[in-house]
Amino acid sequence: MTKATSSFVALVRALLLCVLLAVAAPAVAQTDPLPSWNDGAAKRAIVSFVKATTEPGSVNFVPQAERIAAFDQDGTLWVEKPMYSQVIYCLDRVPAVVKEKPELANVEPFKTVMSGDREAIAKLSVEDLEKILAATLTGMAVEEFRAEVAKWLDTARDPRWKRRYTELTYLPMQEVLKYLRASGYKTYIVTGGGQDFVRVYAERVYGIPPEQVVGTAAGTQYGYGKDGKPFLTKEPKLLLNDDKAGKPEGIHLMIGRRPVAALGNSTGDREMLEYTKAGAGARLAMLVLHDDAVREYTYGPAQGLADSKVGTFTQALYDEAIKNGWTVISMKNDWKRIFAFD
Amino acid sequence: MTKATSSFVALVRALLLCVLLAVAAPAVAQTDPLPSWNDGAAKRAIVSFVKATTEPGSVNFVPQAERIAAFDQDGTLWVEKPMYSQVIYCLDRVPAVVKEKPELANVEPFKTVMSGDREAIAKLSVEDLEKILAATLTGMAVEEFRAEVAKWLDTARDPRWKRRYTELTYLPMQEVLKYLRASGYKTYIVTGGGQDFVRVYAERVYGIPPEQVVGTAAGTQYGYGKDGKPFLTKEPKLLLNDDKAGKPEGIHLMIGRRPVAALGNSTGDREMLEYTKAGAGARLAMLVLHDDAVREYTYGPAQGLADSKVGTFTQALYDEAIKNGWTVISMKNDWKRIFAFD
Repeated sequence: MTKATSSFVALVRALLLCVLLAVAAPAVAQTDPLPSWNDGAAKRAIVSFVKATTEPGSVNFVPQAERIAAFDQDGTLWVEKPMYSQVIYCLDRVPAVVKEKPELANVEPFKTVMSGDREAIAKLSVEDLEKILAATLTGMAVEEFRAEVAKWLDTARDPRWKRRYTELTYLPMQEVLKYLRASGYKTYIVTGGGQDFVRVYAERVYGIPPEQVVGTAAGTQYGYGKDGKPFLTKEPKLLLNDDKAGKPEGIHLMIGRRPVAALGNSTGDREMLEYTKAGAGARLAMLVLHDDAVREYTYGPAQGLADSKVGTFTQALYDEAIKNGWTVISMKNDWKRIFAFD
Repeated sequence: MTKATSSFVALVRALLLCVLLAVAAPAVAQTDPLPSWNDGAAKRAIVSFVKATTEPGSVNFVPQAERIAAFDQDGTLWVEKPMYSQVIYCLDRVPAVVKEKPELANVEPFKTVMSGDREAIAKLSVEDLEKILAATLTGMAVEEFRAEVAKWLDTARDPRWKRRYTELTYLPMQEVLKYLRASGYKTYIVTGGGQDFVRVYAERVYGIPPEQVVGTAAGTQYGYGKDGKPFLTKEPKLLLNDDKAGKPEGIHLMIGRRPVAALGNSTGDREMLEYTKAGAGARLAMLVLHDDAVREYTYGPAQGLADSKVGTFTQALYDEAIKNGWTVISMKNDWKRIFAFD
């Protein structure tokens, strides 16, 4: 082939590709974006919201720059039982901390954690847990912490499914994240969990970059190493307690715009949903109800169970949701599949 | 025309458009992205950096998700003389504050500001200024503050050019912002100025959305209005002093990634540039030197002038820049035009 002919062939190929894409596009658009969801009120609420806010000419159209969606993490995007993964990480880190500071071996609460006595560990007070969190989450360089968490995520397994914690994300919610992003939304995690902890895996696991993770955050301290290179040390100085009222406050600090959609599962998400709903136009506010003991866990008011300390979903929250038009997602009825490995 | 023929005609038109775009693309790519820059070391440093970090196969290639560029604002993106625009805003707001709280009329420093005595105002202490900042930047709803700033920006004029403050942005830096974004970079403002203040206009003026503005930030307080609607009130509680070491600390808090490029103009930017440069691979670190008294202002070491309190550029900073391979931008020699209205 001459060079000109070859260019022409390449051009024709490119044109054919254009045609194929043009023909294929409508078919793609009509594929169900939420295949793991049963047809029901929850799925319909999501799809109607996306159409209302993104279809040109819609009275509730939202310009792309303002399309912000906020997702709680624990209990909303992944499993939070029997305990938040980050707390398990902190407990798992205690032996390494004690190895570095042997004097802690006989000091509570480290002594109890080192004993391996599960019942005693489960009874640790909030103050005890705070000491463990401070010892395992602060005092090291930012890069060091990141490497430690990455290593733990790679090796640790949850007690029930014997899988990596990062595999325990809910497939239906992953579909919502992707669907919203494909519709021009910027997806954020807004979590009571540690901002630096979640940032280690959020990009890989949820497709959410570090700058779109808002979480409980402590300060850092800028300094210089022996080699003269600057680095940041994680300090035990709380800047943002990203829970309850702290969620809208954190959203203002980190994003500076009111979300159009907010999804959570507990009383810790109440203010974020209220704040989101208080904006004008179409808004999406959803709460995941854990009512599937067979495939996951059961906790919350619909089960007539005592309130759970992890992922509290009170009757009052349920009533507020119904009153305000928030959608309650039933894991049992709304989700065809829960995990990608199902 | 039959329906089939008409579809065919539409298809051919679409294909022709594809061809036109394909042919036009290389020409567009070769247009000078920095037309307001004179050919020189500074311009070459920017272009080589972009090529090194974005051309596939380059040893210093940076994946798109990690392309973060941080820009100081005052003195780097817009004029900071004779005083930071935000401070002028705060002084301009004093009459409204006194009108609401008449008891302040006879209390210093409000009394001095109300007197209109420019010399006395210029002599106000840092503590006095802090009182004025607290009275004019906190205590109101977030939306109320936003509306007040927007109104001021629309009406206020700077004393020298008699233009809106938002017109006093440097055209060459606007070109760098656009060039970096066209090369897949996410551009951030990292400013000692108030985060909420800058967010009011950053999107319109710089194309930088609120979530990409990192600045000095105070906390907010979540609460409910008389109508039961939730809102956030700006509190006088400093969360982040985004200056000097506070810049890399703020970058970690708000972005969570080390920038690949950082541009500033004063000692307040030193740590941000150090932190940026300490990362591996090709890095861009630049300082704007104000050495053009005719077209803008002259301050900094090259002029043998005393250090300025606003936009301090000491001899030590200049020496560090030369030693570390940071590029010093001479406004006089590197910039063909300074403002879009020139």
